[in-house]
Amino acid sequence: MNPVDSTAAPLVLRCNANHVVTLTLNRPQARNALSTELIAALQAELDAIAMDTSLHVVVLAGAGSAFCAGHDLKEIRAAGYAPEYAEALFEACSQLMQRIVSLPQPVIARVQGIATAAGVQLVASCDLAIAADTARFATPGVNIGLFCSTPMVALSRNISPKHAMQMLLTGELMDAATALRFGLINTLVPAAELDAAVDHLANKIASKSRHTLTMGKAAFYRQAELPLAQAYDYAKDVMVTNLQIQDAQEGIGAFIDKRTPIWCHGANP
Amino acid sequence: MNPVDSTAAPLVLRCNANHVVTLTLNRPQARNALSTELIAALQAELDAIAMDTSLHVVVLAGAGSAFCAGHDLKEIRAAGYAPEYAEALFEACSQLMQRIVSLPQPVIARVQGIATAAGVQLVASCDLAIAADTARFATPGVNIGLFCSTPMVALSRNISPKHAMQMLLTGELMDAATALRFGLINTLVPAAELDAAVDHLANKIASKSRHTLTMGKAAFYRQAELPLAQAYDYAKDVMVTNLQIQDAQEGIGAFIDKRTPIWCHGANP
Amino acid sequence: MNPVDSTAAPLVLRCNANHVVTLTLNRPQARNALSTELIAALQAELDAIAMDTSLHVVVLAGAGSAFCAGHDLKEIRAAGYAPEYAEALFEACSQLMQRIVSLPQPVIARVQGIATAAGVQLVASCDLAIAADTARFATPGVNIGLFCSTPMVALSRNISPKHAMQMLLTGELMDAATALRFGLINTLVPAAELDAAVDHLANKIASKSRHTLTMGKAAFYRQAELPLAQAYDYAKDVMVTNLQIQDAQEGIGAFIDKRTPIWCHGANP
Repeated sequence: MNPVDSTAAPLVLRCNANHVVTLTLNRPQARNALSTELIAALQAELDAIAMDTSLHVVVLAGAGSAFCAGHDLKEIRAAGYAPEYAEALFEACSQLMQRIVSLPQPVIARVQGIATAAGVQLVASCDLAIAADTARFATPGVNIGLFCSTPMVALSRNISPKHAMQMLLTGELMDAATALRFGLINTLVPAAELDAAVDHLANKIASKSRHTLTMGKAAFYRQAELPLAQAYDYAKDVMVTNLQIQDAQEGIGAFIDKRTPIWCHGANP
Repeated sequence: MNPVDSTAAPLVLRCNANHVVTLTLNRPQARNALSTELIAALQAELDAIAMDTSLHVVVLAGAGSAFCAGHDLKEIRAAGYAPEYAEALFEACSQLMQRIVSLPQPVIARVQGIATAAGVQLVASCDLAIAADTARFATPGVNIGLFCSTPMVALSRNISPKHAMQMLLTGELMDAATALRFGLINTLVPAAELDAAVDHLANKIASKSRHTLTMGKAAFYRQAELPLAQAYDYAKDVMVTNLQIQDAQEGIGAFIDKRTPIWCHGANP
Repeated sequence: MNPVDSTAAPLVLRCNANHVVTLTLNRPQARNALSTELIAALQAELDAIAMDTSLHVVVLAGAGSAFCAGHDLKEIRAAGYAPEYAEALFEACSQLMQRIVSLPQPVIARVQGIATAAGVQLVASCDLAIAADTARFATPGVNIGLFCSTPMVALSRNISPKHAMQMLLTGELMDAATALRFGLINTLVPAAELDAAVDHLANKIASKSRHTLTMGKAAFYRQAELPLAQAYDYAKDVMVTNLQIQDAQEGIGAFIDKRTPIWCHGANP
């Protein structure tokens, strides 16, 4: 681990706007490769965001021409491929990816350039993803002898097995249209319209009740791992609980009375 | 729970034609919202159909301009959001959705208009779905502070996570072409051809051996929840059992001898 | 079981080219129906391939106009539908399909004609599939009273439930474009270009480190059956182990130094 250069630009830029916080990976010269320090910085930002009830939505972006090129191979080589280093690195990275999933707020990936290896894993781990038509996606570990085994945990839970295997076994770059067809991203826009599209989506979601968003996101991932009957038992309890919160009763009343709801948890558009 | 008005039209219309039974949600003035009474009426019809060996296929439809607008929010508000009421309501609804899955007969959703919230859950819970190009789909609970947590149990088992999250977090209406792309529906036809398309599909399936259909449908959902090796052990036993039934031996013989099979269980086209 | 005719052509043709082995089902007069003998012959070939560290990739093909028409119904009828026979047959077939999944090497299906019933199961069990535009796919067991219950184990793990049910309940032939849309195949090419496309894909994958390919394929299927947190724990260990192998360190070094890697396990293109 290198000592931190305290004069350097931060590894993760943070920008709050209303209820939306944008985190930007800021190692453009390294195509935002996930160094140990960058992983730690991103984890710290997410941990803080998790506690901040003023924030409804997170946007994850990359500075420069790449979204994220995966792990920092130069750091890995410099560490001499030591097992203790590798264990710590992949553990930290796996925790980071699961932090995105367990974060109370929905997370939107904003993909403007290449997303490769752990970069694809970031996209797959986010709840939603919008890409520019110039974005490219790959799990190229197979090309360097290091199969994208941790990225595939997220990838294979997002897209079908044949599509995942195509990416994993060939290591080829997929264009944004293919990523859209595979279901890895939600929307594809011209590069010039990417910010507007991300802002529109983020603000739309941010206008909802935060309490409702966080209950729903947590329930989504929990029920997904249960058999059908158990999933229904669990989700039924979530509905009963959800109906008791003020925002639900306000929202239902507003809907019936044809007026705009005023959320207890969070501002309105 | 309101007392039933015995002079009112039934909440569920039932129409048998050959081996196909069509159930039509009949609260068009409420966009077929799933009131407590409508849920009970639909459950009763399905329970009766499950026992009726003359029926091979079920079509689920909605009267009027909407397929189903989800739960009855006016009823929920009138009940004062009471936890006991909510518990009973979502339990009954979850049982209904699982009754569709556990029904011996295949169920086809016929979607002519909006299917929202628990209406999408109905579509997702059916084995097959045909929609008019005028159909629209949404899980808009997030807009009223009540996340579509029970609908997402069915939805997330039908479509990919990114697509499910897009519907759940934005609450936006998806057009029928998007639902087709997501895999939520099987077929999209012009509205004027919807009945013909549903009849064609229902009659095609109804022409099969009922015994075979019911064995197959039950096996499909059971094996889906097992790990691969266990799924094969189970499905292998199903095949061995299936091969002992008269319709299988008749069907194989007819195929080899190039004649039309005569099913023991059910008429032929 | 018929005695083997020792003068007959082999039931499975085997052709090695560099690190790619092509296995061709060779019962064209029976549309490559999976007789007991053919299943055993294919299983034996795969078991041998699993031990052969010179082989990186397997292509599975069919001789003649069909890829594979599923089980041999004439053999099944001739056996009198005996439960002991059926048990042995479906057990052997299920083992064969799982052998494809557990094979160290990636397997590519080359589909030039119809793939039906257990023929679709073969396609779904392979890691990748390329089809000619003339290929057709069906699970038509429902038409002969014998639901495709074992094929659906593989099919339902490849494509979405609505699409799987459409194939299983209707028994209809799907064209190659539909199979592509469902995600059952990776690529669709004009029939005249099928061999070139398969060769290109097989050789591309064969140029990778064999050790890496086999670690990655095994990890893919194992993590797929684990909950998210366990999948990450497992995949993280795979990454740490993978990083210790010579090919990974060679590959990373070659990437950083902008040279072509020289694999310890396997030749280069």
